[in-house]
Amino acid sequence: MPSPRGNVLIGQSGGPTCVINQSLVGIVEEALAQASVDRVLGAVHGIQGVLEEHLIDLGKESSETLERVAHTPCAALRSVRKKPTREECEAVLQVLRKHDVRYFFYIGGNDSAETAHILNGIAVAEDYDVRLFHVPKTIDNDLCVTDHCPGYGSAAKFVAQAFMGDNQDNRSLPGIKIDVVMGRHAGWLTAASALARRFEDDGPHLIYVPENDFTMDHFASDVEAMYARHGRCLVAVSEGIHGPGGEPIVTTGERDSHGNVQLSGSGTLGDMLAAEIKKRLGSKLRVRADTFGYLQRSFAGVWSDVDAREAREVGRTAVRVATAGDVPHGSIVIERQPGETYRSTFGVTELQNVAGGTRDLERSHLVGENDVSQAFLDYARPLVGELPLLGRLSDHPVG
Amino acid sequence: MPSPRGNVLIGQSGGPTCVINQSLVGIVEEALAQASVDRVLGAVHGIQGVLEEHLIDLGKESSETLERVAHTPCAALRSVRKKPTREECEAVLQVLRKHDVRYFFYIGGNDSAETAHILNGIAVAEDYDVRLFHVPKTIDNDLCVTDHCPGYGSAAKFVAQAFMGDNQDNRSLPGIKIDVVMGRHAGWLTAASALARRFEDDGPHLIYVPENDFTMDHFASDVEAMYARHGRCLVAVSEGIHGPGGEPIVTTGERDSHGNVQLSGSGTLGDMLAAEIKKRLGSKLRVRADTFGYLQRSFAGVWSDVDAREAREVGRTAVRVATAGDVPHGSIVIERQPGETYRSTFGVTELQNVAGGTRDLERSHLVGENDVSQAFLDYARPLVGELPLLGRLSDHPVG
Repeated sequence: MPSPRGNVLIGQSGGPTCVINQSLVGIVEEALAQASVDRVLGAVHGIQGVLEEHLIDLGKESSETLERVAHTPCAALRSVRKKPTREECEAVLQVLRKHDVRYFFYIGGNDSAETAHILNGIAVAEDYDVRLFHVPKTIDNDLCVTDHCPGYGSAAKFVAQAFMGDNQDNRSLPGIKIDVVMGRHAGWLTAASALARRFEDDGPHLIYVPENDFTMDHFASDVEAMYARHGRCLVAVSEGIHGPGGEPIVTTGERDSHGNVQLSGSGTLGDMLAAEIKKRLGSKLRVRADTFGYLQRSFAGVWSDVDAREAREVGRTAVRVATAGDVPHGSIVIERQPGETYRSTFGVTELQNVAGGTRDLERSHLVGENDVSQAFLDYARPLVGELPLLGRLSDHPVG
Repeated sequence: MPSPRGNVLIGQSGGPTCVINQSLVGIVEEALAQASVDRVLGAVHGIQGVLEEHLIDLGKESSETLERVAHTPCAALRSVRKKPTREECEAVLQVLRKHDVRYFFYIGGNDSAETAHILNGIAVAEDYDVRLFHVPKTIDNDLCVTDHCPGYGSAAKFVAQAFMGDNQDNRSLPGIKIDVVMGRHAGWLTAASALARRFEDDGPHLIYVPENDFTMDHFASDVEAMYARHGRCLVAVSEGIHGPGGEPIVTTGERDSHGNVQLSGSGTLGDMLAAEIKKRLGSKLRVRADTFGYLQRSFAGVWSDVDAREAREVGRTAVRVATAGDVPHGSIVIERQPGETYRSTFGVTELQNVAGGTRDLERSHLVGENDVSQAFLDYARPLVGELPLLGRLSDHPVG
């Protein structure tokens, strides 16, 4: 199956990450080096930009601009939250044809893989030879097949550094502090808060993820016990926690076009949990809640080096696989190699293996209802890389 | 007036900063080098630790530990929010006497300067020779006399990087985004959001500080105008905004022992503003709010180098001034020297010049009701230091 000659089109979709543009630049660089590629185009605002033919010529960007963009958080091509209808997908194919696009790379989460999968079905039916590839990104780390997702390591680093600081804050001015972390379905990012611990009494002292059912009774008694033990309590809570029936603890009621309930961009869950703790454990207690919000996915200047490098390489791999010709469509995956030292390689899986599904924390990553395991820490640490080394006084008594 | 021989005691008070331990370590280092100093002690949890004689021996810490502590956010000695009564201040003096403390350094905000001032009055009345010095710190940057406060530059850097990222996020997925920034009385930290701008259409597009009165009508029409202009709107709001009568827009009703209303550790203000915008401008709009919360004062691993260096030097200066003997008490100030290149020197002012008062943004720092001036940017930029250099695509049209 020879690879066709023609243009490349790139789109970005869904929530930002701090390294999503590393993948974009990886694709551009590698595509410009391919003999079978004429031009490298970008769709502004993802699939919406394709529909509106809002396309730009990425081949004209200077390498200086591209390198700067690679280190800039959030979709440089601008993003979209849109699940195209069947008719819209057919219209997308028309635009690809019109611009002689033979390679389409869609950087996004599982929704983007699904869009690529649908487009592929139409392309095959219409006998138009276009190579459709999904390039993974998500701070949620919840895509199937891949060992981990580009974007996760950097967001996990932000969360770890946030908890390192907030643990010092909580130790400095003791009380009960609840921090709400992103993660709709899976607790990968919330679990990364555990990387903040160094000393035995360091927080987070409690970690709640959507993989466990959440009840207010257990929560309140857990907090009470930790507060009795440490004189303070720092809690990591995923925004996606839910009751035993799967019902969310609180939502603002808004939904996006994929049917996802809005969880971020509001302090409601944290405030409600703080109020509940005060009500149950005593109104004199110092209880505070912060919701980390969009900073987790967009904060400028903090990223994991491993994550940045892998995000770039995932983009390059997509182009290499697509232009090699053997594989007409697929989603790029990261494979962790066995051994003492962390090492990853890159491969490809079928689009339908990634479309639609999500991957939760494994049972072995969890300890009881409110903590994560050493196995999780071993999994996450190399993805996050080096963290600040904090110190504490030895508290030598005055003799 | 010869300087007495005896022990040094150090305490930390109030909300944390990322460089508050630079000042602590600066004091310890310099004090250990003084002939008139026997031992260097620390009070755990500030004035509360003095009252409870919870003292530790800082002279026994290794220089490796001290250096690590210097780079650790939040009070390593642990902090307190406590305004001691007259009787408690007398009890504090007794403890100082008992431990032959001849130099007391209190690292904190204006409340700590006030405590030092009261202690000084008692010491003078009781004819006990103890040198009382206030070492300034606050992310709020609202202390009088000093050009700026240790802790501000690092918090301002965090806020700037947060807005740099969130501006990309807002550009990537357009909508109205409201970010609530710390600052009870003064808008210094909120104003620092303007440092995030690089391109003409970069946010924050609107900046609301407590120096201006806030009305919901103006807010809604400002947002509407910016949204019409840019197709998006990123807003920086100080937690301390208030109506024309000085009434807060929203509070949770809790107060600390200094009478300060709790503003942080809750997402209420941001959520309320977002709901109001939706109500007035249309429920279909994508409106989100984040409250940056404690991360601004505690995030590990992000600090301004200038701020860290100055915080260290402020501590060292306090010891030098105190042991030189000419000045028996005071608050350390930073003086900005004239010239093209930023340069600061360190001096001392009377405790009563800092105690109790706060300093607002100057009128020349503000533009209208919702922006800051070039004069403010010129003031703040050297304190924050280098920021990440973000890039954007040139959007070359497809010819």
